[in-house]
Amino acid sequence: MAFLDENYLITNETGKRIFRKIAKLPVYDAHNHANMQEIAANQPYRDLWQLLAATDHYVWEIMRKCGVKEEFITGDRTPKEKFLALARIMPLAVGNPVYEWLHLDLRRCFGIDDLLCEKNGEKIWNAGLAELAKPENFPQAMLTGKLNIGVMCSTDDPIDLLKEHDQVTSAVGRTLVRPTWRPDKAMKIQAPGWNAYIDKLGARFGRTIRTYEDLLEILRMSHDYFAEHGCRASDHGVTVPPSETALPALTAQLFRRARDGETLTEQEISAFQGSFLLDVAAMDADADWVFQCHAGAVRDVRTSLFEKLGPDVGGDVCNAAQDFLPGLLRLLNLYDGRLKTVLYTLDPVQMPTLATVARAFGETVRLGSAWWLWDTPIGMRRQLEYIGSVDLLHTFAGMVSDSRKLTSYGSRFEMFRRTLADVLGDISERGQAPEELLTDVAVRICGDGPKQFFNL
Amino acid sequence: MAFLDENYLITNETGKRIFRKIAKLPVYDAHNHANMQEIAANQPYRDLWQLLAATDHYVWEIMRKCGVKEEFITGDRTPKEKFLALARIMPLAVGNPVYEWLHLDLRRCFGIDDLLCEKNGEKIWNAGLAELAKPENFPQAMLTGKLNIGVMCSTDDPIDLLKEHDQVTSAVGRTLVRPTWRPDKAMKIQAPGWNAYIDKLGARFGRTIRTYEDLLEILRMSHDYFAEHGCRASDHGVTVPPSETALPALTAQLFRRARDGETLTEQEISAFQGSFLLDVAAMDADADWVFQCHAGAVRDVRTSLFEKLGPDVGGDVCNAAQDFLPGLLRLLNLYDGRLKTVLYTLDPVQMPTLATVARAFGETVRLGSAWWLWDTPIGMRRQLEYIGSVDLLHTFAGMVSDSRKLTSYGSRFEMFRRTLADVLGDISERGQAPEELLTDVAVRICGDGPKQFFNL
Amino acid sequence: MAFLDENYLITNETGKRIFRKIAKLPVYDAHNHANMQEIAANQPYRDLWQLLAATDHYVWEIMRKCGVKEEFITGDRTPKEKFLALARIMPLAVGNPVYEWLHLDLRRCFGIDDLLCEKNGEKIWNAGLAELAKPENFPQAMLTGKLNIGVMCSTDDPIDLLKEHDQVTSAVGRTLVRPTWRPDKAMKIQAPGWNAYIDKLGARFGRTIRTYEDLLEILRMSHDYFAEHGCRASDHGVTVPPSETALPALTAQLFRRARDGETLTEQEISAFQGSFLLDVAAMDADADWVFQCHAGAVRDVRTSLFEKLGPDVGGDVCNAAQDFLPGLLRLLNLYDGRLKTVLYTLDPVQMPTLATVARAFGETVRLGSAWWLWDTPIGMRRQLEYIGSVDLLHTFAGMVSDSRKLTSYGSRFEMFRRTLADVLGDISERGQAPEELLTDVAVRICGDGPKQFFNL
Repeated sequence: MAFLDENYLITNETGKRIFRKIAKLPVYDAHNHANMQEIAANQPYRDLWQLLAATDHYVWEIMRKCGVKEEFITGDRTPKEKFLALARIMPLAVGNPVYEWLHLDLRRCFGIDDLLCEKNGEKIWNAGLAELAKPENFPQAMLTGKLNIGVMCSTDDPIDLLKEHDQVTSAVGRTLVRPTWRPDKAMKIQAPGWNAYIDKLGARFGRTIRTYEDLLEILRMSHDYFAEHGCRASDHGVTVPPSETALPALTAQLFRRARDGETLTEQEISAFQGSFLLDVAAMDADADWVFQCHAGAVRDVRTSLFEKLGPDVGGDVCNAAQDFLPGLLRLLNLYDGRLKTVLYTLDPVQMPTLATVARAFGETVRLGSAWWLWDTPIGMRRQLEYIGSVDLLHTFAGMVSDSRKLTSYGSRFEMFRRTLADVLGDISERGQAPEELLTDVAVRICGDGPKQFFNL
Repeated sequence: MAFLDENYLITNETGKRIFRKIAKLPVYDAHNHANMQEIAANQPYRDLWQLLAATDHYVWEIMRKCGVKEEFITGDRTPKEKFLALARIMPLAVGNPVYEWLHLDLRRCFGIDDLLCEKNGEKIWNAGLAELAKPENFPQAMLTGKLNIGVMCSTDDPIDLLKEHDQVTSAVGRTLVRPTWRPDKAMKIQAPGWNAYIDKLGARFGRTIRTYEDLLEILRMSHDYFAEHGCRASDHGVTVPPSETALPALTAQLFRRARDGETLTEQEISAFQGSFLLDVAAMDADADWVFQCHAGAVRDVRTSLFEKLGPDVGGDVCNAAQDFLPGLLRLLNLYDGRLKTVLYTLDPVQMPTLATVARAFGETVRLGSAWWLWDTPIGMRRQLEYIGSVDLLHTFAGMVSDSRKLTSYGSRFEMFRRTLADVLGDISERGQAPEELLTDVAVRICGDGPKQFFNL
Repeated sequence: MAFLDENYLITNETGKRIFRKIAKLPVYDAHNHANMQEIAANQPYRDLWQLLAATDHYVWEIMRKCGVKEEFITGDRTPKEKFLALARIMPLAVGNPVYEWLHLDLRRCFGIDDLLCEKNGEKIWNAGLAELAKPENFPQAMLTGKLNIGVMCSTDDPIDLLKEHDQVTSAVGRTLVRPTWRPDKAMKIQAPGWNAYIDKLGARFGRTIRTYEDLLEILRMSHDYFAEHGCRASDHGVTVPPSETALPALTAQLFRRARDGETLTEQEISAFQGSFLLDVAAMDADADWVFQCHAGAVRDVRTSLFEKLGPDVGGDVCNAAQDFLPGLLRLLNLYDGRLKTVLYTLDPVQMPTLATVARAFGETVRLGSAWWLWDTPIGMRRQLEYIGSVDLLHTFAGMVSDSRKLTSYGSRFEMFRRTLADVLGDISERGQAPEELLTDVAVRICGDGPKQFFNL
């Protein structure tokens, strides 16, 4: 098969037929890291480095792994020098999804079919300049045009005024991007800058936050504000779902001590975070939002990188020894039947645990798509094969791009849809289910499933 | 391939040939939850709900996951209303083995080829009524006829008099169902009702159980009684194999304190259970029985379900963070070479650990088939692929149905045999072993392997 | 496909083409347990038992699993009796790589195409006697001839004088075998015989080791000595990478107490080993050696075997509950960018953790091949599929034989290269990357990759 051709990732005839039924459906993407300033401003991209690599730590990590110096990645080299460095190492990245995503981006969005490599670097750079100058490739036009976005959900701080979301809605004439409420900064009581953040959060609503009850009140105001602006879900990042919670009086006391600048113990921090998560989950349950839990990422473990560049630049891993179960059971039992929940994990080792948990708690608790370092053709395939046979494909929460750049809304969904079609095609060709019903499931997973569950 | 056709689950020509050699062999099923009253009474089934769903929590969990209300599952709706509710959601269950099992049951046992769905519900219901009235579909006739059972092993409490086993043996003229001795209730020292159970266990043998030694003596009497009634194995359910044991004096003291109604600590409970398991394992070793260990199930985690319906109704999960090794090593070293052991686990994450343990302890320690939420085509395939290359397929303990309904003795074994044939066919077609020897292994796994190891 | 024919393990046309490009490349094997006395002495092998089984605990474990008595394995039966016992049970081992390796050895090295079984045992035994008498099958001739070894690295104690390495270099006229420095015995402060070993280590360099500083000084002398004799890597076996280290003063104190015969606590032992590993890693960083870490093996768990036969005879397992992360992060952060590191693990459960760690720490940290009980066609396939998509195939450290017998340098590398070709062929045939680039990666993994990284 030729690279990225029409049967890319699809190895059976039934899968090819199923893919044709879902290939053109609009994208519903319940979780990503859309840059709302960029979309609202709607300026043309300057060059391919800016669009494809400048914000994407997946690309950065591959470059580092191939020995490219940091100055050509996040440093002060010119965008063109960086792009040529990327092109040079790209042939070494075969087998990694970054290789596929970047070439999908070039082909599907811009019709640039050359392979990224040293020889083609300059040529592709110039072709990119020409393409990006076209109005059809301005952010809003791409999203509503060739990327075929139905609705996508950004990830936002409770402080955010969501002005850009409103601007985009006006500009494109429909709800294209919904916000997602992510109060991690308020939860991370031990993080540097937490106290200043709490001050800012209060100021946003014209208040001073003195007590934990003040915090919850402000968060409820923010939650309502987000709801008025079209938000349908919250999102929470935890290494391991906290298994301990504190009694209300203790939670209040821990909050006060942290506000006073005291250092809390690991156990106190975890207990506070456990209580906090249950309290914000209550807000979601009341508003019929989806509570999204991203668990398992051990972040910023490479000290040299973190000290130089800060968070969200690479250096993140998973850990097979994590115990998700007690924390999840506490949350899910407390809100059983009342809280729509989506569980994401980074480590395939947690997949059996999460699949059985999702099965046990009925239709409101669903598995999210394979996340981050697991979001690859082989990762998605193994996840879909396994969870369908333990939980149900019918209630799979669907693909999310988790993307930090525009083109990923296209390439990641194409990779997912092809993998889904191939897995379902295999099921049919092994005689395990009728093709017609599997096609229905595929269409649902790509459309009505997430649309209805997330109220998009 | 058409749904469930003759090549169902088999993707290579060698696999098709291997399957033809094992398809018709009698079933040897060393572990299930046969309802002995039902088999002994030998009454016709009233309807398909009773036969296919009323006792099967796999079906219930799928219905819950699809949003069916509990009244249509375990509640007071009529069997027909429940069956129609099941038919209605069935198309949403494609990809889950329940979809395959139910259709295998209808096709292989009753020649009903229609797909379960809203439109066909009434028609299938009526066809079922007609089929179930036929004497060939009464329990004993089905087991010895179309289900082709060689020997199957039920799971029984040490209190049981095994009258139904004797009745069935008389009625069918041979040993069809052997009992299995499962003393979990005596081990679970912390469970509600434990003290009353110990009283009942003593009364069964006309004794009063005052000390731990009394308990062991009664258990030995029960063990002998089961042996006289054809039992060849014990079975034990543990979340994690206990790694601690108590010295005899402490075990006796813990038992006394629990009999006096005292509450033991988690550590005391675990130490008691560790000692208990070693003591009953000694009885198995003396009797040349097989010690079956089912580890890894975290049961009844969904509180709302457990509080309403009790145990064994759903809400069971696995947990990647469990540590099986210390407890297993203690047991296996103590009885090395003297105790036939079969290890089952729910979580594929434990598979490498268990496969290496089975390999390390020689021919008496064997891996059991993929259990419960892992007992699926993909689960069995991955298990067989992996364990064969670490341990030996030749000493795989073989398929067990773990079934709570009659037809599963057929459908689950068909699914297993087809998967086995496909995996072995792949091994042959990759040039890794000669077809003839792989065929021998398949025949052995389906017959002499379990027959000889379990003395069936 | 016929057993072990030209397409053995390769299921797609692209894979066949890729394999043809790597099949004949010289073998670079960065880790094995070569018997240097045997290679230096260069005596003909007496018989096939000596060559294929007498030193190979993989074979022993399979024999035990099939019920062969220990006298026919490690006991005092004649080599011929043992070989016939092995032949007798071999048909039961299909599905296990031992079946493939032994037949590859017979076919590829000696043109003996018969299947090992009772009927053929005598015939193969005699054919082996004839073959082994030929000079082309003497150790040095085999290694440089039909086994096509470029460079291979043995595993050696810091005490070793490496005379045999020098002899082999002289005899074959080039560097065929490089030593690897493995100071495990000095690290295992709690092991029986540790104190005597430390005395011996000092005596080797004409010193008395009184303090931890003395130990480090002697180790540095040994490290230099190995470097002068062509060593390019160290190797370290740990159950779990130690997460704690002791301050220098405490390390020194722990060492003194152990030298005085005191018993240290588990925590003290672990802290000592943690400090020790960091100190020897510093020596590797200074010398630009590769630090190889073999983690996850729980050794000698079958007491009956260990008490009778000692270590390295079987009875080794893995454990899903191990936590590798803290210890690895400590090591990798401390030497970030300065220490070439290869991570091996026994348990596929650790694969996602290790793959993300290797990705996070850039080009100096690499994943080693699937180790020991995981070193099978299915194990290598799953590893390559997964790690390529998280980390990079380009920086995969490459195959190592980990072998304890001569022929394994051939059969294990053939199994790996075929699996690699098949996995890469699949990637190409799914349209995920161009065949030409995948071929480049394959050639690199089999040659320049390990050659350059290990400085071979």
